[in-house]
Amino acid sequence: MKTVGYAAKSQGSELTEFSFERRDLRNNDVEIEILYCGVCHSDLHAVRNDWGGSDYPLVPGHEIVGKVMSVGSDVKKYKQGDTVAVGCMVDSCQSCDQCDNDEEQFCREGMIGTYAGKDRISGEMTQGGYSKHVVVREEFVLSVPENLDLSRVAPLLCAGITTYSPLHKWGVKKGSRVGVVGLGGLGHMAVKNAVAMGASVTVIGRSESKKDDAVKLGAQHYLVSSNDDEMKDSQSAFDVIIDTVPVKHDLSIYTPLLDVDGTLVIVGQVGPVDELSTVPLLMGRRRIAGSLIGGIAQTQQMLDFCGENNVLPECEMINIDEINTAYERMEKSDVRYRFVIDMASLNA
Amino acid sequence: MKTVGYAAKSQGSELTEFSFERRDLRNNDVEIEILYCGVCHSDLHAVRNDWGGSDYPLVPGHEIVGKVMSVGSDVKKYKQGDTVAVGCMVDSCQSCDQCDNDEEQFCREGMIGTYAGKDRISGEMTQGGYSKHVVVREEFVLSVPENLDLSRVAPLLCAGITTYSPLHKWGVKKGSRVGVVGLGGLGHMAVKNAVAMGASVTVIGRSESKKDDAVKLGAQHYLVSSNDDEMKDSQSAFDVIIDTVPVKHDLSIYTPLLDVDGTLVIVGQVGPVDELSTVPLLMGRRRIAGSLIGGIAQTQQMLDFCGENNVLPECEMINIDEINTAYERMEKSDVRYRFVIDMASLNA
Repeated sequence: MKTVGYAAKSQGSELTEFSFERRDLRNNDVEIEILYCGVCHSDLHAVRNDWGGSDYPLVPGHEIVGKVMSVGSDVKKYKQGDTVAVGCMVDSCQSCDQCDNDEEQFCREGMIGTYAGKDRISGEMTQGGYSKHVVVREEFVLSVPENLDLSRVAPLLCAGITTYSPLHKWGVKKGSRVGVVGLGGLGHMAVKNAVAMGASVTVIGRSESKKDDAVKLGAQHYLVSSNDDEMKDSQSAFDVIIDTVPVKHDLSIYTPLLDVDGTLVIVGQVGPVDELSTVPLLMGRRRIAGSLIGGIAQTQQMLDFCGENNVLPECEMINIDEINTAYERMEKSDVRYRFVIDMASLNA
Repeated sequence: MKTVGYAAKSQGSELTEFSFERRDLRNNDVEIEILYCGVCHSDLHAVRNDWGGSDYPLVPGHEIVGKVMSVGSDVKKYKQGDTVAVGCMVDSCQSCDQCDNDEEQFCREGMIGTYAGKDRISGEMTQGGYSKHVVVREEFVLSVPENLDLSRVAPLLCAGITTYSPLHKWGVKKGSRVGVVGLGGLGHMAVKNAVAMGASVTVIGRSESKKDDAVKLGAQHYLVSSNDDEMKDSQSAFDVIIDTVPVKHDLSIYTPLLDVDGTLVIVGQVGPVDELSTVPLLMGRRRIAGSLIGGIAQTQQMLDFCGENNVLPECEMINIDEINTAYERMEKSDVRYRFVIDMASLNA
C-alpha cells in the first residue's frame, strides 16, 4: 500500500514529507493506521547515522500507537479496530535461545529495528512510525490497555520499557530504594515506573533546579550530587540506580550510593564513560549493568502494568511539520518530557 | 602471652623479627599456634600503606593455618589440638543486617582486619599471621578438613575465598562457561575452583606464554587476547569472567566476551580502570561487579568444598627469613603461585 511519512533524505538532513510503499500483508502481518508516534533521541541519532547502519531516505519513529486496519489470514490475536502499539523491534529469528526466552532484543541473529532495520524476508530497509501506516508481524504488535489516554501512550514503547525492564530485572518492589540520575524522557519514566512499583524514589540532580519537577513526577526525595555532605550521607542508600545520562560521565560519583549488592543500570549513554574506580564495586559487591529495552512479552507486561496503575509519560503534542524544531529543542533538553507527533496532522 | 613474628617497623621497611604480646584469652577466644601463613599481595600493600590505615610495627599475614592451643571458657566449636584456619577478618559487630546475613566482610561498622585492624574491645591494632601465635574470637576461626595437605591450605583463606565467592554468587555450576583473566595467586585459584565446580574454564592471557600452565591447572581452553580473530570468535562465549589483573587496565576488551546477562567480576585491581564503553553492557545486558573475600560461613563452605574436591593452591614454601626476597619476587610475578611461610622456621 502507498503511505506517506516524514523522512531524512540524506544523512543529517531535515525531515520532509516522503511518499513510500508499505509491503502487502503477509499472512502473519497486521496493518496499522498510526495515530501517534513518540519522538525519541535515538531517532535523531539514526538521522545523523551516529551509531552507523542508517540508510536514506529514513523514516524514524519507534514509539507507535494506532488502530488495526486489517490483518493477514493467520493472525489470531488482533482484528480490525483494535488499539495496538509497536515499539523498537518488528522482527527476530523466533527460534534461538534468546527468542525462546522472550528476549527478542538479544536475538542471536539480531533483532530487526522498527526503522533502519533489514526485513528478514525481503531484505528491504524498515521504515518507522513518523508515517500514516505501518505493517508489522503479529508477534511484534502489542495490545494497549483501554483505559489509558491514547495520546500519551506512545513513549511507553521505548522510554517506558527501557526503564521498566531494569527495575523489574533488579527486583524493585514495594520499599525498594531507587535512585534516578537524569530527568529527561527516560528519567521521568524511571521515576513514574519505580513509584508505581512502590519504591522510595530519589532523583539525583546536579543542582536544586529539577527538585520541583521531581516531586511533581512522584519522587519522594531529591539529592544534589554537587553537595558533598548530602552525597556522603547517602552512601549505601540505594538498591538500584537508573542512570539515564546520555553523555560521557563519571559513574564513580554514583556507585558509592549503592548498598551492598546494589546495581547501577546504564540506559542513557551509548559509548564511553569516564575512568572508573573499582573500590566501591569491591567494597560493597556493587555492580554496573547495562539494559536494552525489553522483550515483547515484558513490553506487554509493562503496558498492562501502566494500564493498571495509570502510568503515563508527560507529553508535548506536536504536528508532524514541527518535527525539525522539536529535534532542535530535544537537543537542548527543552521538552517536558517527550514530544509526541499527532499523526492526524499528516494528510495521507 | 609473649610471641614473636616478623614486622615492618616503619612504612615500607623490610620485615624483621619482632617480639610482641598477644592478648590474654577472652571467654570466646581461641589461641592458635600458627603452622603456615600464606603471603598475599595485600600484605605488601599494607607494609607500604598503599591503601592507608597501616600503623607500625605491622605484622602482616591473613592466610593462617594452625593448631588450637587453648580456648576460652565459652568456646564450644573448638578444642585443643584442632586444625584451624583464620582468614582476612577477626571480628565484626555481629549484630547488623550484613553480619546477620553471614556477610561479615560488609559489616555496617566495618570488619576488623586480621592485621592493621582495630580491636573492637581494646582498641589495639591487630597483628597478622607472620608469627608463632594468634588469638581470635571463636566466630572467626575456621575448621580445616582433615584430608587436605596442611602445608598448602593457607592461601585458600584469601585467594581461595576471593575467587570461590564470586563464582558461587554468579551461579557457576556444571557446564558454566568461565573465563579467568590473569594467572597469579588469585587467577590460579579461580581456575581450580571453577574446574572443581564443573565449569568449562578458559584462561585469557595476553600471549601464549601461560597456555601450558593454564592446562596444567585444569583449564580446558586458552584464549589470547591480542589475537583479534580469536577474540571475535569468543564474543558472547562466557557466563562469568573473573578478572584478577591487579593494575589499571581496559575492561572493554573482556566485556564483549560475556554472553547475555554475563558478569565480569573484578577481584584484582583496587583503584582505577580505563575508560569504559557502555555498548557491550547495553547490547547484552552484561554486568561488571566487584567482590570482596566472602563471609565466614561461605569461607567454611569453601574449605569444605576444597576438602571434598581436593582443591589446593600451588605453593612455594619459604622460611620466614626469606620473606623480603619473596616480596621482591612477588612484585615481579616470579612465583607459581603463592608463597607459604613455614612457621617452624621461626624460633619462638
